[in-house]
Amino acid sequence: MTTGILPLLTSRSSTYEYAERLVGDSDMMAVLEAARLSPSFLNLQPWEFILIKNNGMIKKLLEQAYYGVYHCNDYECRPPAIIAIVLKKKYYDGQYGYPRRDKPGIFEAHLSISMPAMNMILAAEERGLATCILNVNVPETGKLLGLSGGDIIPLIVCLGYARPGKKAAMKPRKSLESLLHYERYGGKK
Amino acid sequence: MTTGILPLLTSRSSTYEYAERLVGDSDMMAVLEAARLSPSFLNLQPWEFILIKNNGMIKKLLEQAYYGVYHCNDYECRPPAIIAIVLKKKYYDGQYGYPRRDKPGIFEAHLSISMPAMNMILAAEERGLATCILNVNVPETGKLLGLSGGDIIPLIVCLGYARPGKKAAMKPRKSLESLLHYERYGGKK
Repeated sequence: MTTGILPLLTSRSSTYEYAERLVGDSDMMAVLEAARLSPSFLNLQPWEFILIKNNGMIKKLLEQAYYGVYHCNDYECRPPAIIAIVLKKKYYDGQYGYPRRDKPGIFEAHLSISMPAMNMILAAEERGLATCILNVNVPETGKLLGLSGGDIIPLIVCLGYARPGKKAAMKPRKSLESLLHYERYGGKK
Repeated sequence: MTTGILPLLTSRSSTYEYAERLVGDSDMMAVLEAARLSPSFLNLQPWEFILIKNNGMIKKLLEQAYYGVYHCNDYECRPPAIIAIVLKKKYYDGQYGYPRRDKPGIFEAHLSISMPAMNMILAAEERGLATCILNVNVPETGKLLGLSGGDIIPLIVCLGYARPGKKAAMKPRKSLESLLHYERYGGKK
C-alpha cells in the first residue's frame, strides 16, 4: 500500500483501458467510505452515489462521457464498476440548499461535489486500483440512471484494474513557479 | 505522520481558531505541491495560487469569507497563512477553456478547482497542520487580491495550527446506507 498524499498523487494517472478483473467488496467499500467522509461547504454533504456494475449500463454511460478531445470508442474503456455522483436539486436550488449570497448555489454545489471524487481516486490508488474521473453529458446520464426533478450527475468515477501495459504515466503538470503568487496576484517572493 | 486516506479523512476537521505558530516552509511547499499535482478535466490545471501571510490582508480576506451561518467575528479566525485559489476566465469562458458541450465550462471549471483544495487539506492533515476551506464573496475577494478581467477566486484555504483546545471533532456524516444506490437511482442491493 503506497502511503502519503504526494506519492499517491504522483503515482496516480487516469486509466481508460481496464482489465476484466473485478473490484473486491472491501476495496469498493473503502473507496465509498472515502467519498462519504469528504468535507463540503456547510457540511451539507450534497451527494448520493450510484454503484453500477452492469456491463450494458456501463457501456451506455461511457458513451455519454467525455474524454477530452477523444471519443469513447478510441479506447476499450470497460471498467468493471462505475460510481456516479448524484447532486440533488435541493442542494443547489432549494430551500435547504446553499444559500444565495453573491453567487448561485450551483457553484458551491459543484465545488463540493468533486471532493468525494478526489478522495475516491486517492483511496483507490492506495489500494492498487485504477481510476478515472469523467465528465458526462448531464441530461443523458441522468436519464439513463433514473434521475428526475432537476437532480443531476455532474461526474462519474470509473474503477477497476489497468489492462496490462495500459497504465499511462501521469500527465505533465505546470511548475509551481508558474502558478504561485505572493500576497497578491502577480506578487513576487 | 498519519497515513492512509481514511484515517486522514477521519481525523481532519475544519479549524476556525488558530494558534500564532507559523507554518514551516517545507510543510507549506508540500501542501502547495499536493495542489499542483491535482487532476483536472482535460488536464487544463485551471488554477493559480496566491500565498498570503500578511496579517492585515488575512483579516480582510476573512471578513469576505463565509462560515456557514456564522460570521467571521464569531471566531478568532486568524490563521498564519491563506492560500487563495485563482480561476482565470480563460479556463471557464475562453478559447482555451473548457469546451462548450451540454453545459457551460464554468461548471467543469468549478469541479476541477476544488480538487487542489481537497489535496491541500489532506497533505496538511498528514503534517499535523490545521485547515479550513472557505467559500468567499467572489467579487470582493478578487478586488482585494488584485484580480481583473473576469478572473475569480472561488475559494480559499486557511492553514496553521489549531489553537489549543480548539480543534473541533469531525462533523457528523450521513450513513453510507442512506447515500448509496445500486445500478440506478433508488436501486436496492
